[in-house]
Amino acid sequence: MPAKRLIAMITDFGLNDHFAATMKAVILKINREAEIIDITHNIERHDVLDAGFKLYQTYRYFPPHTIFLTVVDPGVGTQRRVLLCSDGEYFYIAPDNGLLSFIYKDKPAIDVYNVIYDHYFLNTISKTFHGRDIFAPLAAHMSKGLYPSETGEKINNYKKLSIPDPSIETADIISGIIVGFDLFGNATTNINNSLVGDDFGAKILNHIIQKPCNCYEEASDSELSIIKGSAGFLEIFIKNRNSKEALKLKRGMRIVIKKK
Amino acid sequence: MPAKRLIAMITDFGLNDHFAATMKAVILKINREAEIIDITHNIERHDVLDAGFKLYQTYRYFPPHTIFLTVVDPGVGTQRRVLLCSDGEYFYIAPDNGLLSFIYKDKPAIDVYNVIYDHYFLNTISKTFHGRDIFAPLAAHMSKGLYPSETGEKINNYKKLSIPDPSIETADIISGIIVGFDLFGNATTNINNSLVGDDFGAKILNHIIQKPCNCYEEASDSELSIIKGSAGFLEIFIKNRNSKEALKLKRGMRIVIKKK
Amino acid sequence: MPAKRLIAMITDFGLNDHFAATMKAVILKINREAEIIDITHNIERHDVLDAGFKLYQTYRYFPPHTIFLTVVDPGVGTQRRVLLCSDGEYFYIAPDNGLLSFIYKDKPAIDVYNVIYDHYFLNTISKTFHGRDIFAPLAAHMSKGLYPSETGEKINNYKKLSIPDPSIETADIISGIIVGFDLFGNATTNINNSLVGDDFGAKILNHIIQKPCNCYEEASDSELSIIKGSAGFLEIFIKNRNSKEALKLKRGMRIVIKKK
Repeated sequence: MPAKRLIAMITDFGLNDHFAATMKAVILKINREAEIIDITHNIERHDVLDAGFKLYQTYRYFPPHTIFLTVVDPGVGTQRRVLLCSDGEYFYIAPDNGLLSFIYKDKPAIDVYNVIYDHYFLNTISKTFHGRDIFAPLAAHMSKGLYPSETGEKINNYKKLSIPDPSIETADIISGIIVGFDLFGNATTNINNSLVGDDFGAKILNHIIQKPCNCYEEASDSELSIIKGSAGFLEIFIKNRNSKEALKLKRGMRIVIKKK
Repeated sequence: MPAKRLIAMITDFGLNDHFAATMKAVILKINREAEIIDITHNIERHDVLDAGFKLYQTYRYFPPHTIFLTVVDPGVGTQRRVLLCSDGEYFYIAPDNGLLSFIYKDKPAIDVYNVIYDHYFLNTISKTFHGRDIFAPLAAHMSKGLYPSETGEKINNYKKLSIPDPSIETADIISGIIVGFDLFGNATTNINNSLVGDDFGAKILNHIIQKPCNCYEEASDSELSIIKGSAGFLEIFIKNRNSKEALKLKRGMRIVIKKK
Repeated sequence: MPAKRLIAMITDFGLNDHFAATMKAVILKINREAEIIDITHNIERHDVLDAGFKLYQTYRYFPPHTIFLTVVDPGVGTQRRVLLCSDGEYFYIAPDNGLLSFIYKDKPAIDVYNVIYDHYFLNTISKTFHGRDIFAPLAAHMSKGLYPSETGEKINNYKKLSIPDPSIETADIISGIIVGFDLFGNATTNINNSLVGDDFGAKILNHIIQKPCNCYEEASDSELSIIKGSAGFLEIFIKNRNSKEALKLKRGMRIVIKKK
């Protein structure tokens, strides 16, 4: 068994209720030595894609063998499958609703198991809180060394959400989309920083950005700006304002980059 | 002394201020080995009953010997008493304002001690932050093995809030009330899942629900629905909407169940 | 090396994004034994002074050798310096933007080092997330025993924000200002509890307060009140209401105390 495994959680259960804490209680009752870290519990309700995007932005910074326990689960109580995955470095637990799509894309050789034995579940399974009754106990047992293959069957037909790649339109023109936002209203795109040089312009909606900034501070107040973001992708923002709200930006909106 | 004890916190101090963290700092200064878990710090200000309800929904999932440190304390600085309780499995620390009423009801044989010695308090006691000066140090010392009887006197006249039971009106009719809400606006009642069969209807305000759902997903959009909730009680909800806001539901509202 | 060091975090990254968790992941990847505690991640965006005030209210309650990792950093990506500080009891990591001003004032003999070696940073440094790439790795290495002098040069010209002292106007009159608010809208001033006796009055805006309260509960509803606050300073509040919103109180507003 590897060194003590960390369990890192993403849910849409919020912080006002007992739900996230109850999952932690279940884990600690099974493995008192488990160490749990919150990525976020504030995913917008049922926003499976954003949960996946947030996981994608952080996962590679975690220690090896971390178990990502990700429960955004509008289909709780239906026949949707429960997945345990291993990419050789990390483990993932999620409902089979596409939450892990960014991971599947990043790690195409990932092993995905559909849980078929209920041996590790709590004794009573509610209709509405599988985070507590199924996902948390599986995470706890994995933190004690349970391997995905011991409780499931390997599958290939797991659900994948479409994660568009940027499009190389010409040698100078790349088009992409907004993939997500942070709490400051900054928008992350799907255009890798490495696809552009040091000088480029951008267009989104009717807004033209003449050149990139080297840091947030350098941008002009109230002006839409672009920067090579920390997640590895171009990011658009307005200094000291919420660009998402100010410009009514939405996930999926098209952005065009022109290299110089 | 039992195995390393967990301290699980409920407060109304929120997450924007230093208060919850200062309590943790005090605990860790007294017992560097203590392990602390947040249930929630987002109880609505002074809502003692809801703090108790959230504790009730989660406490049994925690490892034995967990110390529940629950501070929603509108009477801070007055003569209200400080309680240490043991039900043989768990420990509880709370002001004597009824916060533990659900626990008293669930565990009638609980031992309740009124803290009379200030030996374990911080040296300076403020008028406004007993969470830091009194409750946290007591929790820390209990995590090191202090037993409630060592610092208090056993009492029976602790404050209990009324927690109504559901009312069996006829063989087929049960009436109850809404006890609380989660962040999705779903309403938990005081009617145990086990009191009803698989088929039943419900009425609340002018809304009639014809039959229960087996999962959230199965419900019709925008229609008030009922389900056997994960806390062991019937729960009403509107799929993908906030039923509390949409129907102006309030704690204490009456709901009537008709078995079929 | 001292006993296992705690890392206590203050940021303005919020809890909806991955940022705070990514910093923790970086820390745990470098020092799997590090123990991390959140003070708050909900500092209002770029409010360096309030971050410092919250640190000031809590820091002395932490165990010795705690490392305070404080990242509110509007100048990320500019030439602003990165500081490691030691006051003989605690360690502090912050951008050189005045965040630690309250600490400098409380601990005038503090040693402040400007980080000049990038040996301990992550290999790739983004332009926008030094919390992850610079501050978190430094904290992790300090939790393993790195001392500030090993990676920086001692400086004296670090940035200090003005933290006004209260003004003793006459033997009976003290004037001060509002320094900050808690989530209940209570306002903490810069007037030490020890500067006044048991009986005094106050004036702020057009509001006269006749005498102090001994506890929140004792105050009259809807009436502006004053109390010796838990942070060691006079605090004004309205019982069961948000005085900040009700009276449009602002940081820096003048308050005058008249001793009796």
